[in-house]
Amino acid sequence: MPTILGQNQYGKAENRVVKITRDGDTHHIKDLNVSVALSGDMDDVHYSGSNANVLPTDTTKNTVFAFAKEHGIESAEQFGIHLARHFVSSQEPIHRARIRIEEYSWERIATSDGNSRFIGADEVRHSFARKGMETRVSQITYDGDNWEVISGLKDLTVMNSTNSEFWGYVKDKYTTLKEAYDRILATDVSARWRYNWTSDEQRMPNWEKSYEQARKHMLQAFAETYSLSLQQTLYQMGSRIINSRSEIDEIRFSLPNNHHFLVDLEPFGLKNDNEVYFAADRPYGLIEATVLRDGVEPKIPVDMTNL
Amino acid sequence: MPTILGQNQYGKAENRVVKITRDGDTHHIKDLNVSVALSGDMDDVHYSGSNANVLPTDTTKNTVFAFAKEHGIESAEQFGIHLARHFVSSQEPIHRARIRIEEYSWERIATSDGNSRFIGADEVRHSFARKGMETRVSQITYDGDNWEVISGLKDLTVMNSTNSEFWGYVKDKYTTLKEAYDRILATDVSARWRYNWTSDEQRMPNWEKSYEQARKHMLQAFAETYSLSLQQTLYQMGSRIINSRSEIDEIRFSLPNNHHFLVDLEPFGLKNDNEVYFAADRPYGLIEATVLRDGVEPKIPVDMTNL
Amino acid sequence: MPTILGQNQYGKAENRVVKITRDGDTHHIKDLNVSVALSGDMDDVHYSGSNANVLPTDTTKNTVFAFAKEHGIESAEQFGIHLARHFVSSQEPIHRARIRIEEYSWERIATSDGNSRFIGADEVRHSFARKGMETRVSQITYDGDNWEVISGLKDLTVMNSTNSEFWGYVKDKYTTLKEAYDRILATDVSARWRYNWTSDEQRMPNWEKSYEQARKHMLQAFAETYSLSLQQTLYQMGSRIINSRSEIDEIRFSLPNNHHFLVDLEPFGLKNDNEVYFAADRPYGLIEATVLRDGVEPKIPVDMTNL
Amino acid sequence: MPTILGQNQYGKAENRVVKITRDGDTHHIKDLNVSVALSGDMDDVHYSGSNANVLPTDTTKNTVFAFAKEHGIESAEQFGIHLARHFVSSQEPIHRARIRIEEYSWERIATSDGNSRFIGADEVRHSFARKGMETRVSQITYDGDNWEVISGLKDLTVMNSTNSEFWGYVKDKYTTLKEAYDRILATDVSARWRYNWTSDEQRMPNWEKSYEQARKHMLQAFAETYSLSLQQTLYQMGSRIINSRSEIDEIRFSLPNNHHFLVDLEPFGLKNDNEVYFAADRPYGLIEATVLRDGVEPKIPVDMTNL
Repeated sequence: MPTILGQNQYGKAENRVVKITRDGDTHHIKDLNVSVALSGDMDDVHYSGSNANVLPTDTTKNTVFAFAKEHGIESAEQFGIHLARHFVSSQEPIHRARIRIEEYSWERIATSDGNSRFIGADEVRHSFARKGMETRVSQITYDGDNWEVISGLKDLTVMNSTNSEFWGYVKDKYTTLKEAYDRILATDVSARWRYNWTSDEQRMPNWEKSYEQARKHMLQAFAETYSLSLQQTLYQMGSRIINSRSEIDEIRFSLPNNHHFLVDLEPFGLKNDNEVYFAADRPYGLIEATVLRDGVEPKIPVDMTNL
Repeated sequence: MPTILGQNQYGKAENRVVKITRDGDTHHIKDLNVSVALSGDMDDVHYSGSNANVLPTDTTKNTVFAFAKEHGIESAEQFGIHLARHFVSSQEPIHRARIRIEEYSWERIATSDGNSRFIGADEVRHSFARKGMETRVSQITYDGDNWEVISGLKDLTVMNSTNSEFWGYVKDKYTTLKEAYDRILATDVSARWRYNWTSDEQRMPNWEKSYEQARKHMLQAFAETYSLSLQQTLYQMGSRIINSRSEIDEIRFSLPNNHHFLVDLEPFGLKNDNEVYFAADRPYGLIEATVLRDGVEPKIPVDMTNL
Repeated sequence: MPTILGQNQYGKAENRVVKITRDGDTHHIKDLNVSVALSGDMDDVHYSGSNANVLPTDTTKNTVFAFAKEHGIESAEQFGIHLARHFVSSQEPIHRARIRIEEYSWERIATSDGNSRFIGADEVRHSFARKGMETRVSQITYDGDNWEVISGLKDLTVMNSTNSEFWGYVKDKYTTLKEAYDRILATDVSARWRYNWTSDEQRMPNWEKSYEQARKHMLQAFAETYSLSLQQTLYQMGSRIINSRSEIDEIRFSLPNNHHFLVDLEPFGLKNDNEVYFAADRPYGLIEATVLRDGVEPKIPVDMTNL
Repeated sequence: MPTILGQNQYGKAENRVVKITRDGDTHHIKDLNVSVALSGDMDDVHYSGSNANVLPTDTTKNTVFAFAKEHGIESAEQFGIHLARHFVSSQEPIHRARIRIEEYSWERIATSDGNSRFIGADEVRHSFARKGMETRVSQITYDGDNWEVISGLKDLTVMNSTNSEFWGYVKDKYTTLKEAYDRILATDVSARWRYNWTSDEQRMPNWEKSYEQARKHMLQAFAETYSLSLQQTLYQMGSRIINSRSEIDEIRFSLPNNHHFLVDLEPFGLKNDNEVYFAADRPYGLIEATVLRDGVEPKIPVDMTNL
């Protein structure tokens, strides 16, 4: 046979599970999008179509919803760990499970109002509005021995309206760009960080706190860096996380440079003193890099953008 | 000639203008997407291709950016009023201008941190993150005499995790739905409200405050209504605004019913006590209605969804 | 009560129904996205939450799927007529039904191959690939007496690489655009045409043939018009349809001007002889107009873009 | 320093270049979306913000447009090869260039019409409509010595309306799926194949012909395989390409299982004889695998879906 099968994986993607937890009249939401990918002894299903080793993707979907009841959803990471362990330990042909989770956050609708004439306004504890555009993400992989947890976020749009320059670059025959000494720096942060928790023997991180702190440090580094290049800002964002969070060893960023071009108003007799910008769509700069704890081997895939 | 020209309009759509205002080291952002549509004496350009009456769409784009400098952007509505007045009053063939604006909101990145070892953390006043998924919208129309201002928002996703029922409905031969006495009610609010300010003789509303208050009342009504149908909730949201804001006479909603189906866990020996839901994509219910101040003639177009 | 209810409608949106018809081994597909909107005696459900007049949106969904079996899907229009008639005639409180349908087209995968060593290649009559980016649309409205059928298409992207000019336009203080004597003209056609079939007494159009012919005439007019403005091209597209199809009385277009800017290559010592273009995203010109049979009253809503 | 820089790359993404070639009155289009990613000696720009080694992303954009004039666009792959070679060979700090290209295809608008009364209808050779939903993709990587070319396509939606079964699978406590003996099999093909051309010493493939043939073989294998699982179909699609095209050594697929569920019409007294289906959105099965020429080392990244 001249062709052979290489790496393969399968499962049900984008299971949209919402879990409501009731603490008296106060409700709590977890809103996840869970994707399952299983690998193992799967040659036959590819070569002959025999499904004898195949747990149906429909079953992996059912398991997601059943586990939301059986284990609850303490955090996306903990939920993924339950699922990955289950598939690898309960199905002999399954040697590896990878669970990807997107989490959407909600905030309570403020209803209490001292001047309100609406009865019970401050009693409402079951009403929510979706919060923010960003999505929290996590990927949990388990092979029966070791864990790999990569978490992060995407679509967090940020802007510095000053403290950004760009000059001193290479100029070749195709270079027309003028140097900038005060520009807008804006990006949609996509970040993935890898935890050094890899074994059930280790103490597990506090996933919720770790996420909140990593996000906070990253945002503060973005805001507080006087930037000579988006690469420099990226490195500051990454090293701030590595330096602040001992449970994280590696982080990779994919940062589009969302160009805001100063509009030329001179034809209309107006001076544009860094006031009026055109927010461009495409093309955009794209800056990608990994920041690592010294001595650590990088494991996050280089290409977070689709191949 | 057997065919004739009917209503027509033209202009530059989706001009993405960002305005930075500097108050010392404290910066302020306005981030708009402005679309211009002009109508008037435009038969020739359609029949013969003569552009003698046509102000280029490129010029309407330039005007948007120039006006951001000349007039600033106090509010989306005020900015649209400047633009609409300009086109109608400065171009004889233009009899009507319609300005549509989307506004994206930003919030400051919190950098102050009592325990921070990063110098100047609490001095950063030029760093922002995009806030929320919702988009504020406004449409300003001017015909040289009268103004029509319709404002609102879209993509504001909200959920009540209880206090919603649905029963007592018509049952025909195609009805299989079971009655529900405690369900999730979730929707993506798309709302447009019309102001009764129509003339330069009237006192203009405070557009920013009016938006904030209308949004607040609408959200509170959503949260505080014990709902027997999404239609009932819609009406409460609308009447709360009309009753609370005298400057608004009419509001139209388009509310998808974002179904959250209780997952049947019985096959797995589990009881689902209103805990685990599947968030469905399509199909969805779609509830649309206008709520009016009594005695007022409705003017907001019925079809907010695309034809 | 200071507020009242205005126009309202409800139903299940985006029911994705696929119908396979088997003619021996040769299969045929109809792939529709059907949205139902019902209006009528619905005050109570808004004011008090009483659902006594409400046929559930879930039932309207079931009806769509049941009718695909009971009536088949001869055309989107005919299918919509069956549905609209059913809701209005079978439910006393329903006075008006509006059915919107998107149709996705498929073409057969070519498998016959004279040199093929694969057995049965030319016997495969059940394999399809999605065809084209455009979507056929239709809206059928019925009030118990009269029909209104508006059909058309969206997202049909077309380009003329020459035979387009733009000059002789108005120049004001904000005008910087240079006249163009040979430019690319490109747009994404969104068109809606209204049929003059309004009553069961009239002979019904052949919906499939009418669509194919209207589309063909529109495309030919786009290709064959030497254009001095996109407005002129739009009018030619519309009048070609009105003149060629007696069953159509009115057509409305929404045509973005998809700008292709000639790239300035002079800084690199190169001459750009109408060869290399930058395809821009935003902003874009937006040209909208109605073309009518003389003497006919326009009925297609002016705003096909979302409010 | 406790943190270090790992893999990094930068460049201008999504340069939308359209090239018109005029052969008398007959025009030809190439419509590409080109993304540049450069790597090399870039530590300083990350650590200190020094741009001394940085060719601006703006310059990489200019180069794309200039090269469309200087070299033309014979094929996406050939164009990418010109660009990658240029960046690596002309900039000492650049050690590796990766060019990603999306190509959108167009077809001519048929204007000739024997019965046409429109003059010159069959003379129009400059009018085009966008063809198909699928996008052709290519990634060209060069490190100064070796080439890697990975091509393919995405968003090619296909369906078999019969000749698909799914049964004989593992059943655990979470399994509720019923076996299927005649189901719809539908997917959106995302495929990437790697060429064994790696050196300027080798004869370069005919990129256009190779793409057309690989696509044809893949589609035929999809249509002609009697499928017991989507994995089996995937493997047949891959091996058909490897067996038919000696220039291709490896192919990876990401195939969502676009579920079409047979609608239960029994509550309405109707029998659904594989006729009426509900096309679901989420969740969906996701089947991913690599097919290789025997003896070849796999190099296409496993994760084509975003991390």
